[in-house]
Amino acid sequence: MVPSDLVALAHQLADAARPIAARYFRTGVTVDDKTDQSPVTIADREAETAMRDLLTRHVPDHGVFGEEHGAVRTDAEYVWVLDPIDGTKAFITGLPLFGTLIGLFHRGKPVLGIIDQPILQERWLGVAGERSTLNGKPISVRACASVANAYMYSTAPSMFAGGYAKSHQTLTEKVKLFRWGGDCYAYGLLAAGHVDLVVEADLKLYDYAALIPVITGAGGVITDWKGKPLDMHSEGAVVAAGDPAVHRAALDILSA
Amino acid sequence: MVPSDLVALAHQLADAARPIAARYFRTGVTVDDKTDQSPVTIADREAETAMRDLLTRHVPDHGVFGEEHGAVRTDAEYVWVLDPIDGTKAFITGLPLFGTLIGLFHRGKPVLGIIDQPILQERWLGVAGERSTLNGKPISVRACASVANAYMYSTAPSMFAGGYAKSHQTLTEKVKLFRWGGDCYAYGLLAAGHVDLVVEADLKLYDYAALIPVITGAGGVITDWKGKPLDMHSEGAVVAAGDPAVHRAALDILSA
Repeated sequence: MVPSDLVALAHQLADAARPIAARYFRTGVTVDDKTDQSPVTIADREAETAMRDLLTRHVPDHGVFGEEHGAVRTDAEYVWVLDPIDGTKAFITGLPLFGTLIGLFHRGKPVLGIIDQPILQERWLGVAGERSTLNGKPISVRACASVANAYMYSTAPSMFAGGYAKSHQTLTEKVKLFRWGGDCYAYGLLAAGHVDLVVEADLKLYDYAALIPVITGAGGVITDWKGKPLDMHSEGAVVAAGDPAVHRAALDILSA
Repeated sequence: MVPSDLVALAHQLADAARPIAARYFRTGVTVDDKTDQSPVTIADREAETAMRDLLTRHVPDHGVFGEEHGAVRTDAEYVWVLDPIDGTKAFITGLPLFGTLIGLFHRGKPVLGIIDQPILQERWLGVAGERSTLNGKPISVRACASVANAYMYSTAPSMFAGGYAKSHQTLTEKVKLFRWGGDCYAYGLLAAGHVDLVVEADLKLYDYAALIPVITGAGGVITDWKGKPLDMHSEGAVVAAGDPAVHRAALDILSA
């Protein structure tokens, strides 16, 4: 379904971003505050530029939507969605859990996703119609009998405003284990069968695009808080689960 | 000040624990609930047993205080304090930020500490009177002009009960960047100059013993919330800072 040269190109993008992120990691790079107060560094900008240069060279007619350098041709048949360093806060504090996120949409459908951790050298790949992999090895989510048995992650309390905070807290009190932190890495752990739920809000397209094929290709489910599939225009409230039964149960709790 | 054969022995303990933790990591080990509800796995128990066996063989007259297998000879001249897997929740969810903690007290004074991350293969070593190291390379904390510039970590909200929660929240609102998560790894990041403050409560002796020499040997400060040095009988409320000025400022906010 996804042409193999586009899968190869996605790997090339991740290969280009990885050494840039690794080179700046723990070097005390200057941190700018963006207008939305999320920190950004030269590593973010350089890594995105390197990936965009590859896209311009190989697929100049494809659309690109990047966190740092904006959007072009988003009505193209193929649109790449790039987050050079998801988890910038982890990055600037020296925590090797940030990731480079690469998503590809075909006629509005998410068909490819990469989560790449440059320091641990771990790469999750999801391709529509194929089994997801971690460093080339097939992965799958695990069964989880109920919310009461679930291990759950969410990145930070600041994601949850108003009604979201209350529903989220109710859910955290019902799971077996809840931890803050994780960024994109938590979704990778879910796809590989170590975590059962990741529930977040306030994500941008470049935060969630790459996650969709990785999680669905591992047998998991990822939707918004109402159970609707994610697309390029979702609101950014995300419920990912390994076991579909836990996904439904979590939605019920979140919407109560 | 610390005999070199004891430093070598501390490395041997970490060398023994590392492959055990790595072997069980991400294998879906069974998790037991201890009486205090903290999860424990066969990896915790095996790793501590391996370390205790080495101590019995090499320094049978030393005391040992371990998280999993209890305390013996705690009135000995030397007492080893072991936490085979600090951050068991990270461990059982596949997050490579847990650590093996090895502390050594001499006549009640903390004189040696190791924080070892078995997956990333990162080892912090602190020895009284010497510069702390990360994988053998000297490290030091960084300067931080004020709390308003500080990057801060704390592991989990559940650590902070009653008055602790309110003071802690006030401080998190004054720093530049605050993140939940980290366990012992956050203290390692502080000692290596990437994080400015780690503030926690409800730590046990085996959670904080190893941190003291690592942080002080890197030029940092670690005390309880009243500014008192930590010893074998501290209450477990901990304020670690890279810059002594930020340490004082944090204490002021926490005690206000």
